[in-house]
Amino acid sequence: MDFLSLFVKDFIIQLQSPTLGFLIGGMVIAALGSQLVIPESICTIIVFMLLTKIGLTGGIAIRNSNLTEMVLPVIFAATVGILVVFIARYTLAKLPKVKTVDAIATGGLFGAVSGSTMAAALTLLEEQKIGYEAWAGALYPFMDIPALVTAIVVANIYLNQKKRSKAAAVNSQEQPSTRQEYRDQQQGDSKVKIWPIIEESLQGPALSAMLLGLALGILTKPESVYESFYDPAFRGLLSILMLVMGMEAWSRIGELRKVAQWYVVYSVVAPFLHGLIAFGLGMIAHYTMNFSLGGVVVLAVIASSSSDISGPPTLRAGIPSANPSAYIGASTAVGTPIAIGLCIPFFIGLAQALGG
Amino acid sequence: MDFLSLFVKDFIIQLQSPTLGFLIGGMVIAALGSQLVIPESICTIIVFMLLTKIGLTGGIAIRNSNLTEMVLPVIFAATVGILVVFIARYTLAKLPKVKTVDAIATGGLFGAVSGSTMAAALTLLEEQKIGYEAWAGALYPFMDIPALVTAIVVANIYLNQKKRSKAAAVNSQEQPSTRQEYRDQQQGDSKVKIWPIIEESLQGPALSAMLLGLALGILTKPESVYESFYDPAFRGLLSILMLVMGMEAWSRIGELRKVAQWYVVYSVVAPFLHGLIAFGLGMIAHYTMNFSLGGVVVLAVIASSSSDISGPPTLRAGIPSANPSAYIGASTAVGTPIAIGLCIPFFIGLAQALGG
Amino acid sequence: MDFLSLFVKDFIIQLQSPTLGFLIGGMVIAALGSQLVIPESICTIIVFMLLTKIGLTGGIAIRNSNLTEMVLPVIFAATVGILVVFIARYTLAKLPKVKTVDAIATGGLFGAVSGSTMAAALTLLEEQKIGYEAWAGALYPFMDIPALVTAIVVANIYLNQKKRSKAAAVNSQEQPSTRQEYRDQQQGDSKVKIWPIIEESLQGPALSAMLLGLALGILTKPESVYESFYDPAFRGLLSILMLVMGMEAWSRIGELRKVAQWYVVYSVVAPFLHGLIAFGLGMIAHYTMNFSLGGVVVLAVIASSSSDISGPPTLRAGIPSANPSAYIGASTAVGTPIAIGLCIPFFIGLAQALGG
Repeated sequence: MDFLSLFVKDFIIQLQSPTLGFLIGGMVIAALGSQLVIPESICTIIVFMLLTKIGLTGGIAIRNSNLTEMVLPVIFAATVGILVVFIARYTLAKLPKVKTVDAIATGGLFGAVSGSTMAAALTLLEEQKIGYEAWAGALYPFMDIPALVTAIVVANIYLNQKKRSKAAAVNSQEQPSTRQEYRDQQQGDSKVKIWPIIEESLQGPALSAMLLGLALGILTKPESVYESFYDPAFRGLLSILMLVMGMEAWSRIGELRKVAQWYVVYSVVAPFLHGLIAFGLGMIAHYTMNFSLGGVVVLAVIASSSSDISGPPTLRAGIPSANPSAYIGASTAVGTPIAIGLCIPFFIGLAQALGG
Repeated sequence: MDFLSLFVKDFIIQLQSPTLGFLIGGMVIAALGSQLVIPESICTIIVFMLLTKIGLTGGIAIRNSNLTEMVLPVIFAATVGILVVFIARYTLAKLPKVKTVDAIATGGLFGAVSGSTMAAALTLLEEQKIGYEAWAGALYPFMDIPALVTAIVVANIYLNQKKRSKAAAVNSQEQPSTRQEYRDQQQGDSKVKIWPIIEESLQGPALSAMLLGLALGILTKPESVYESFYDPAFRGLLSILMLVMGMEAWSRIGELRKVAQWYVVYSVVAPFLHGLIAFGLGMIAHYTMNFSLGGVVVLAVIASSSSDISGPPTLRAGIPSANPSAYIGASTAVGTPIAIGLCIPFFIGLAQALGG
Repeated sequence: MDFLSLFVKDFIIQLQSPTLGFLIGGMVIAALGSQLVIPESICTIIVFMLLTKIGLTGGIAIRNSNLTEMVLPVIFAATVGILVVFIARYTLAKLPKVKTVDAIATGGLFGAVSGSTMAAALTLLEEQKIGYEAWAGALYPFMDIPALVTAIVVANIYLNQKKRSKAAAVNSQEQPSTRQEYRDQQQGDSKVKIWPIIEESLQGPALSAMLLGLALGILTKPESVYESFYDPAFRGLLSILMLVMGMEAWSRIGELRKVAQWYVVYSVVAPFLHGLIAFGLGMIAHYTMNFSLGGVVVLAVIASSSSDISGPPTLRAGIPSANPSAYIGASTAVGTPIAIGLCIPFFIGLAQALGG
């Protein structure tokens, strides 16, 4: 019962955090019929600033990292981030009545990283005197950004295929052909079309801003504007966006009535699954490159965690058709408490068992 | 003459404050034909942020208060805040040619509280070694928010009655009826209609944002976004809004030509009247609950004070048809210097006379 | 080769500064076909805040200055600021294929002042133990603001003359007249029309905001909002605007293909020329008013410097038809490295030669 009380305690702390507080606040005032409106131009600039900040954070971290030392963990972090999206695409999305874009967006959030979950793990490792590399925390952006980019690209590929298979269906009624021919044609088309869709995703406002921030963080010295502007404004701007997303989520919460249980199952299982994959890859780095066991735990925990900060604004701008009630609900209401309350002690225990 | 020189000195300090400085600046550039325009979407988000901040401030203060200890002063503070609006509704609004919405908005501002006036009183009490409860300053939101909510609701009820009496006048010409019948019908209607209007007022953007902030301040822990975002941005955003309100006020200043003297009379009398009512209620708490005499002075001073900070943005959004030249002019140009320069020494003297 | 390596080093530092970094970032994402859009209402408020801040900075500096002591250097600073615009108007603008508005805007930027160039000079003077008046740094706004105001007014006069000479050309075809008559008429008209154009320029959003800030800085006490809002937000807001200007500049960079060499020549020669004029005027103040040789160097360096901060947002709003690739390219990519790397040591050497 200790686990459960920890879980409940963390769940309540999550509910009281400004991020979730403003989200629920938005849902409540929408439910009460408030006429509050945040102008669209304001949402646009807020999303721009949030994503630029996320990119800058990653870029500055990368510039200050010694990449040669980190190479294998970095590759594994990016691999896990991308893999998590595909896992959601081929598990959660296949469950009955779950909408594919909602599942991909949820996968994106679970692939992205929660800074506060990672901070909790680092604190615990120090308390337990388990050593880890000083740069382990800098693995963050290498998992976060690939996961979000992958989610947006995969969602756009899916939406494009759907659109063209609809168009093809209309065509096929006009000019009847065998089913086999049609499938071949569609596969041929979809192969041809993947690169333009990736390009288009990268040119979209969400990924443009994030990758611009990343490039500026790596190539220039934006610390002065980062510290005086983008970083201090981040949480406040996020609170406004969470309010907007709460109001949007309220109008779409009904869509979840028949599928909520699948999101709960996914949100309980996914943190362990993702963490175990990362733990396994981390052990490879442990045996080949002498990556510390504490570092392996950090890698596993950031894989377990799901983003409550960088994810929502990115996905709102990048996959506007996905339902925020689904992905934010799954991530912040279930995934984060599981990751903090259960996965952190689990992976620390696993490392101690293997190390001792 | 000492009183007059104090008044003039404080008047000049008020004129130099950013709040009034930007307001007058807006009037001057409007008078000079400037083509400066602040986009409407910017005004919307500024008002949202200011009102959310006002609500958060109140909510956090309430969460950190020991309400059982404060119960009677809290009830009295709210009572005075509400009462002040009704006093303006049935005195200032009845004066010849004074517009009713302008009078109600002015009452709202005089019911709301000025933080700097309260701070001046607390400083003086300390200098004179008059004891007061540590939580006396936390009475602020309990008078501020009820006054502003009441003003918006009362104004909406008035505007609604006016609209429906116009409609009724049109109807009565078509289907003649005795005057008595018409009055009965209207009264019946207005009774029926008050709750929907209150609901509608609360759903409006101004009160939605303020009450959302209040609820989040009480129920969640928004301190991190409050301290990093809403609080530091407050005065700067207010300065932009004051500029806009100055430009708006300039175009409507002509409306005041024939009624300005009534606003001056009101602004001189009201601070003393409101302060005395609060002083009297405070003395009840002094005799029944052992509320300190210093606390009674604080209650009287916040009742004397009129808001230059929380009021203008709230009323601009909540009672858009009211003339800002009227309510801001009355409050900041006359009411605040009177409250600081005359009411504070008066109520401290009164407390010393009663206590000695 | 030492000069060249200093120049190259400073050029790279410039490229890594957030100002130029975001500008180039904007050009790159525009070139890559990004669909990122910053809403126009956001650009409007950013420009308003930047220009208000520039005005406030100047106004506060003027209020805190002892103008009687500074009178001659102040007059010389303003004279140089205005003169620089006219020099560009009658040299750069007359070069083949150079657009007149682009040349005027470039002159405005070179007349305006770079705070970081001035700071570099002050540091070097201290290192070399050359004395200068404590208020020498406060000469900044007296050159900066007149230069930008002059550039906007001169550009508006030019654009107005062009419009009316076009209209006149159409008229003259309809009602034939001698060339002499037409010229007389045009000159008469342009004389009559200068004051309305100056008035119109001052009423435009750019100069309204800047002069409002200036007046509020001089007449009121806006330090609280300046320090909590306008100053800390400045560099961040500027970074967003530079991104927008980079995207705008990209679409117009082709215009520069045939004239880029003239901008390079101007940007190399102008810092020395402007600095020498200011140095000469400074020497007059040295002999008549005992203005220190260190102060003369400061005056010369701020004349050499070109604005990378106050200039771009002012000119974008004040001369929207000017090409930002031209004026920002000339100023930040060539002018600033020349001013820092070559002019500062040159004028310090000159002062030492004259003083020794």
